[in-house]
Amino acid sequence: MPVLLAPDQAPALHDLLAQAGAFDLDCRIVARPGRPDPVIRGLGSLLKAGPGEISFLSNPKLSHQLEGCAAAAVIMTSESHELIQCGDPSYCIVLCSQPYLVYALLAQWFDRHRVARIPAGVHATAVVAATAHIGDDVGIGPHCVIEDGARIGPGSRLGAGCFVGARSIVGAQCLLYPRVTLYHGVALGDRAIIHSGAVLGADGFGFAPDPRARDGAWAKIAQLGGVSVGDDVEIGANTTIDRGAIEDTVIGDGVKLDNQIMIAHNVKIGEHTAMAACVGIAGSTTIGRRCTIGGASMISGHLVLADDVHISGGTAVTSNVDKPGRYTGVYPFAEHTQWQRNAAVVSQLSQLRRRLRLLEKKERPD
Amino acid sequence: MPVLLAPDQAPALHDLLAQAGAFDLDCRIVARPGRPDPVIRGLGSLLKAGPGEISFLSNPKLSHQLEGCAAAAVIMTSESHELIQCGDPSYCIVLCSQPYLVYALLAQWFDRHRVARIPAGVHATAVVAATAHIGDDVGIGPHCVIEDGARIGPGSRLGAGCFVGARSIVGAQCLLYPRVTLYHGVALGDRAIIHSGAVLGADGFGFAPDPRARDGAWAKIAQLGGVSVGDDVEIGANTTIDRGAIEDTVIGDGVKLDNQIMIAHNVKIGEHTAMAACVGIAGSTTIGRRCTIGGASMISGHLVLADDVHISGGTAVTSNVDKPGRYTGVYPFAEHTQWQRNAAVVSQLSQLRRRLRLLEKKERPD
Amino acid sequence: MPVLLAPDQAPALHDLLAQAGAFDLDCRIVARPGRPDPVIRGLGSLLKAGPGEISFLSNPKLSHQLEGCAAAAVIMTSESHELIQCGDPSYCIVLCSQPYLVYALLAQWFDRHRVARIPAGVHATAVVAATAHIGDDVGIGPHCVIEDGARIGPGSRLGAGCFVGARSIVGAQCLLYPRVTLYHGVALGDRAIIHSGAVLGADGFGFAPDPRARDGAWAKIAQLGGVSVGDDVEIGANTTIDRGAIEDTVIGDGVKLDNQIMIAHNVKIGEHTAMAACVGIAGSTTIGRRCTIGGASMISGHLVLADDVHISGGTAVTSNVDKPGRYTGVYPFAEHTQWQRNAAVVSQLSQLRRRLRLLEKKERPD
Repeated sequence: MPVLLAPDQAPALHDLLAQAGAFDLDCRIVARPGRPDPVIRGLGSLLKAGPGEISFLSNPKLSHQLEGCAAAAVIMTSESHELIQCGDPSYCIVLCSQPYLVYALLAQWFDRHRVARIPAGVHATAVVAATAHIGDDVGIGPHCVIEDGARIGPGSRLGAGCFVGARSIVGAQCLLYPRVTLYHGVALGDRAIIHSGAVLGADGFGFAPDPRARDGAWAKIAQLGGVSVGDDVEIGANTTIDRGAIEDTVIGDGVKLDNQIMIAHNVKIGEHTAMAACVGIAGSTTIGRRCTIGGASMISGHLVLADDVHISGGTAVTSNVDKPGRYTGVYPFAEHTQWQRNAAVVSQLSQLRRRLRLLEKKERPD
Repeated sequence: MPVLLAPDQAPALHDLLAQAGAFDLDCRIVARPGRPDPVIRGLGSLLKAGPGEISFLSNPKLSHQLEGCAAAAVIMTSESHELIQCGDPSYCIVLCSQPYLVYALLAQWFDRHRVARIPAGVHATAVVAATAHIGDDVGIGPHCVIEDGARIGPGSRLGAGCFVGARSIVGAQCLLYPRVTLYHGVALGDRAIIHSGAVLGADGFGFAPDPRARDGAWAKIAQLGGVSVGDDVEIGANTTIDRGAIEDTVIGDGVKLDNQIMIAHNVKIGEHTAMAACVGIAGSTTIGRRCTIGGASMISGHLVLADDVHISGGTAVTSNVDKPGRYTGVYPFAEHTQWQRNAAVVSQLSQLRRRLRLLEKKERPD
Repeated sequence: MPVLLAPDQAPALHDLLAQAGAFDLDCRIVARPGRPDPVIRGLGSLLKAGPGEISFLSNPKLSHQLEGCAAAAVIMTSESHELIQCGDPSYCIVLCSQPYLVYALLAQWFDRHRVARIPAGVHATAVVAATAHIGDDVGIGPHCVIEDGARIGPGSRLGAGCFVGARSIVGAQCLLYPRVTLYHGVALGDRAIIHSGAVLGADGFGFAPDPRARDGAWAKIAQLGGVSVGDDVEIGANTTIDRGAIEDTVIGDGVKLDNQIMIAHNVKIGEHTAMAACVGIAGSTTIGRRCTIGGASMISGHLVLADDVHISGGTAVTSNVDKPGRYTGVYPFAEHTQWQRNAAVVSQLSQLRRRLRLLEKKERPD
């Protein structure tokens, strides 16, 4: 359950909006004459927020949830505000054109104030090479290992048990949750957030058939490239990004990767592209900028996807995508016996087409 | 290879069944006059069990495997016993109505007696916060980290390198294998079994488009909820369960999750639902009770699946499922050139239907 | 970016080929009268290699990239050499019948000389049981845990934070990257390479319905088998291989597994089979020798795949495959609205076939 701030640590609404940067957007509080500025202890959904919490209405279709809402304050657009018959609501109203973005800023504020940060300094149980360079105000958690020549930028924090291999670089203001593994030769930009279990820089999957070997053995292609990650990238739990074969695997600025994603060697991902969980990108594929890839999609190797391509979840992308747009390829599911009947026909589709052509010819014998 | 107990540590059959709780079911040993109760050193399949091992026949179709079976004892139903022409078999017979369940109980017994438990006490290399609460008879392995305010319930054991974040709770009699990561604000019920590499409580994947940013940048939605796991839950290796955005992600009592499953934020899974490996559940989806989800299935976000729904492996579920039953959506595989011919037609299916309608109209011109 | 060797550490071309074993193949340098043997500091692609680097042409279609190539040397076949109009190229030419294999050997050489190995000896922070057996010239990294009765073969190196459970075996000359987890009773052959986050020996997913329990609870089938891995196996990051229920899960000699693969209990994989990332193999399936399984494929349980079977990426294999060959089952993707039209027809395929039959009958009323 979300933990609320203690009342004496919680800010008044105006202070919260100011500190969270909400006034940099077009936020304003609808004055409630004679009532004090409410203290905000946490965030809640419209249906569940209690009297010390702030909520938001981003989808006008949910405005009926305002009925009986117990929140201390609600963020909404002017349009929503005009639509609803508020009378004199029990909650304070915060007007702005982007309620979801204001909610994002407030949630970030609560997260900063609620979760204890890893303290600055190197924990006594961490093992840091003498040749590693640790910037100012860096926190290194218990049982971390920082190898020769690695660099940790100022303000970065590494959770327990992180591993930073030889000559790898962590930029400034990064946050690595416990048990992140960076092999040697991996470079993170600034403000990266990497979740537990992520592995960056494992060998790409490269093998050559070895004709000298009996019985089909493989010769390993050593992977000499690294991984290069831009600024403002977030990488989810247990996601893996392999090192390049010769050049680097490249993750652009602002890319957001969910959990259990697999990025193979030599892949390049353009700026601000976001991928949901369980996506796999095979080797040497290039993904454009501002793409979104739905969960559990698979993208074959050596492809190029243009900028602004949106792939629906569960799609197998097996050829280049040259134009922006939405692409889908998921097989419709059905009650099992119905599926069985239809799937049986899938295996006869080319026959079926042939039979249809035959009938058509008979209709038009000329 | 399975390790057998040393003969002097192995129990006689009657003692084994008693200690394993098999007599709480309807188990009985068919007496073999003049022969001593055999000593049971381990479990084996019908074809491979040796003279010190017990085996079981749960599928009557496999009864031909009894021919020449070298096991010391075989568990079977009365029906199987009557069907087979035993004469005077070399093995002892244990009759019961549920051979597979008796096998489960015996396997649990051998597992308890064969695998050394993590000893009670806190290993010298573990880092335990002064404000953490460690219950009676708890074992904390090497290089574990237990943060401020975390609670470990009585009788629980944590393998090497586990991480329990601030204010997280591990219930009683839990078993965490090495390198399990619980972020802050994660609560496990009693008797949980969590396998290595599992990550509970990483941030849900939430981003809002930030119109202030140039070029499509995303604003992070901080994830303020936690993860709430019921009693008797098992979670497989490298499975990830994200924390909720505002409320908790919820895993019900008795849920069994295999390896490499991804549970996104705000998902709720009903009691005793079981999921095979590599399943992905997208955000805010609710799964009912007693469901089974086949391996590598993908379930889209914001859906509701009823109780007692069974999804076949490899299915992409993209809409609500209101009724119990079995659902499937896997594309039939075939020899490659045959697939190629049929897949080409898939892309023309709506054309094909149009052509068919045209022919039908000509048949019935009225 | 790939790091080049310092000029004083870099070998001359002839020495490099000799040390890498390239002369054991049919390699020969085309003499360039009056010019010294170039020093080779690294490997590069034809387009990007600089003057201190060696490159290779394995696909004759790319021979136009030789134009303006700045590499010090290029590996190619005699056929390619004859085809191109070299005149007097700036680069030295290495002729051989298998340029890609020679590249593999050279990349291995650079990898050995560039990446610092884990030093021999047991790090002070590692926890090694008194009854564990550590071979000669073994390196055990920081925060490793080696349990009772485990054995580490000569020349093997374990990265930081590896866990080797009770009685498990690591063969000779193995390389475990940081944070590999081997449960108890897991055996690796010689020369294994295991990447970070891999988990071998977690419990197979086995549960029996427990009719004594209310509401659908499951009884756990304890998993008594182990994992047995042959020689020369490579296992990718965050891949999981479960222990067998009674017998071992078996990975044959020379098997290569990419990242995030899931191998369920009792699976057997034949020699030299290679699987790309994100593949899932369900329980008790047997895969033949020299198979290749494309990324994100799913193979159902209790199946048998013959030797030399090649499964295309993204395929769900749901029945036995008796004959060698290539098999595919991926649903074609398309622009979203086009997909929508075609997918709608998929759900009516059996109807469609019925309507076609009806028309055909009318054509041939006899």
